[in-house]
Amino acid sequence: MKMKLPMLGLGGSVATPRKGITAEVVIVSNEEELEALGEGARGKIVLFNNPMPPYHPVEGSGYGETVRFRLHGARLASEHGAVGVLVRSVTANSQRTPHTGVMIYGKARRKIPAAAVTIEDAEMIARLIRRGERVKVRLFMEAHREGKVPSANVVAELRGSTLPDEIVVISGHLDSWDVGQGAHDDATGCIMAIESLRLLREAGLRPRRTIRVVLWTNEENGLAGGKSYAKEHADELAQHVAAIESDSGGFDPRGFNLELEDSARHGRAMLQLQELLNLLELEESLKVKSGHSGSDIRPMKAAGVPLLGLKVEGSRYFDYHHTHADTVDKVDPGELNRCVALMAFTAYVLADMPGRLGENW
Amino acid sequence: MKMKLPMLGLGGSVATPRKGITAEVVIVSNEEELEALGEGARGKIVLFNNPMPPYHPVEGSGYGETVRFRLHGARLASEHGAVGVLVRSVTANSQRTPHTGVMIYGKARRKIPAAAVTIEDAEMIARLIRRGERVKVRLFMEAHREGKVPSANVVAELRGSTLPDEIVVISGHLDSWDVGQGAHDDATGCIMAIESLRLLREAGLRPRRTIRVVLWTNEENGLAGGKSYAKEHADELAQHVAAIESDSGGFDPRGFNLELEDSARHGRAMLQLQELLNLLELEESLKVKSGHSGSDIRPMKAAGVPLLGLKVEGSRYFDYHHTHADTVDKVDPGELNRCVALMAFTAYVLADMPGRLGENW
Repeated sequence: MKMKLPMLGLGGSVATPRKGITAEVVIVSNEEELEALGEGARGKIVLFNNPMPPYHPVEGSGYGETVRFRLHGARLASEHGAVGVLVRSVTANSQRTPHTGVMIYGKARRKIPAAAVTIEDAEMIARLIRRGERVKVRLFMEAHREGKVPSANVVAELRGSTLPDEIVVISGHLDSWDVGQGAHDDATGCIMAIESLRLLREAGLRPRRTIRVVLWTNEENGLAGGKSYAKEHADELAQHVAAIESDSGGFDPRGFNLELEDSARHGRAMLQLQELLNLLELEESLKVKSGHSGSDIRPMKAAGVPLLGLKVEGSRYFDYHHTHADTVDKVDPGELNRCVALMAFTAYVLADMPGRLGENW
Repeated sequence: MKMKLPMLGLGGSVATPRKGITAEVVIVSNEEELEALGEGARGKIVLFNNPMPPYHPVEGSGYGETVRFRLHGARLASEHGAVGVLVRSVTANSQRTPHTGVMIYGKARRKIPAAAVTIEDAEMIARLIRRGERVKVRLFMEAHREGKVPSANVVAELRGSTLPDEIVVISGHLDSWDVGQGAHDDATGCIMAIESLRLLREAGLRPRRTIRVVLWTNEENGLAGGKSYAKEHADELAQHVAAIESDSGGFDPRGFNLELEDSARHGRAMLQLQELLNLLELEESLKVKSGHSGSDIRPMKAAGVPLLGLKVEGSRYFDYHHTHADTVDKVDPGELNRCVALMAFTAYVLADMPGRLGENW
């Protein structure tokens, strides 16, 4: 029986030869099982069939622990002589929806083509193999690199009234993965930043410090926008009182993850920010947590800039992430509005406080 | 901008000409809006963009009120001079998943091609048109009819010990729509019937009456299996004490909808069935409700056969129904097992009671 399965090539993968690659599939759930195959993967297409756990209200999405097969699967399979790799889509929910994303060859000596299959098809292939069938896949991919082109971050400011050289960045990334519309990843982040500035202007609220909207370029594929910003604004970073990013979708807001230096964790400014955010009765308010702010603002960390990542209700984000289904109809206007309100509020507070995080007055 | 949209042809639709149909899209939400267009649909492709309401725990799925556009949209649009019709998929949830199903030209004088688009694409086309864009679609479909071929219901029995000529039918339909695996529609119904019989045999339980498993053919496309059964077994139908069907998926069981003649609604047998089912503490137990048993057993209604349709938790059925996503991984083994247990229990009770529904003893 022949079937055509919906697949998406992984970002960074090489193409197959023009006639495609046809090979038997061997299936593993993790690195240990691949290791145990010994020579069994040679000449084969390896399918990493490791299920992402369902969303957990406390533990979160399980994306972090499962995405490694998408990232490193091709290198691992290639080290064992495989000719191609398939990765079970990194999601807990599917309607036969392949999820793509970036992959990394790293030190692989041979680059083999890599594609994502749906949960449904990974399970079907696993069932067929379990009952003794030989499953052959013909993989055909035309992936290629177009080379680098100039791009730019988009920047706008509401200049501060008395401390215009001190800056609060609010931001999202302008690029998105090639499938879908990038609605939750990360159009909503951009909207939050733009709308915050518009609302503050409309309300005639001009804080002491400058609020700078930055819409990052190239988040998905190298972080060039965030890295360049940190580099080109290096002499200004000491004056960045905070940088905020939203890159987890435009769902109902829960609070912020705050990354900042130990020395800045106390003092009246921090207390006041916490107290003001507490007034909003958000589910998680403000949590100091290293490594969970945002990938585009992270390059400012070394300069000691306090980083805030918006946290939202996360149960549906990875249903749509990097698929054809990340479309604007998935965004609830009420939820997005509450994100905008929180972003505008927080930016204003940070830009208008008597002192900076870590300071007393 | 050109985009390729995922679509599925509707069942029964004619093909497009070989070069496809290219036309501007006009959008309506219902019959009144189509009427109001007057000559505005002539030469156009009509998109019926009527959203199916989200599942409601009491009201149910909203499928019934929305599916009419899929069924009759082509005829309606054709009457207004349209050259093709697109129908928003009849579902409340989507991951860019088109849902297909049968359509009916009825008395249409011109048969125009009909396809389903995803919720996402229907919404996108609606947004584009709302902001004044002209949206053109090229529709290409190769649909055709292969003609009728012989088919058969599959029948098996556990013969009754003392009243073998009295029959309880338990059933599901063997065919499925052409996309996906037909896991919930209706492989689970077939499994319930087969497994019930196997379990009763394994447990050595042989009731007084015969339990007959029937796996119907051609439910999706004309009900030939159900109609032929009622016709060919006409002289046996008076001896059918009940016919049960499951065709709403293999989700957690809730109870049965029972259709039976007024004269049979009382008496000791009915009380006893109700009491025994109550022991199971199902959410809905047994409800007498006309028109909600099962499409394959309905042809037996005229002969007065009591009809039971299994009711299950229905919140997810129309997420998968008639899509590539109706696959076996969507079936929870525990939920299906509870359906099997209920089916076996009910079949046994009906086959082993001292009297038939409507009787006293």
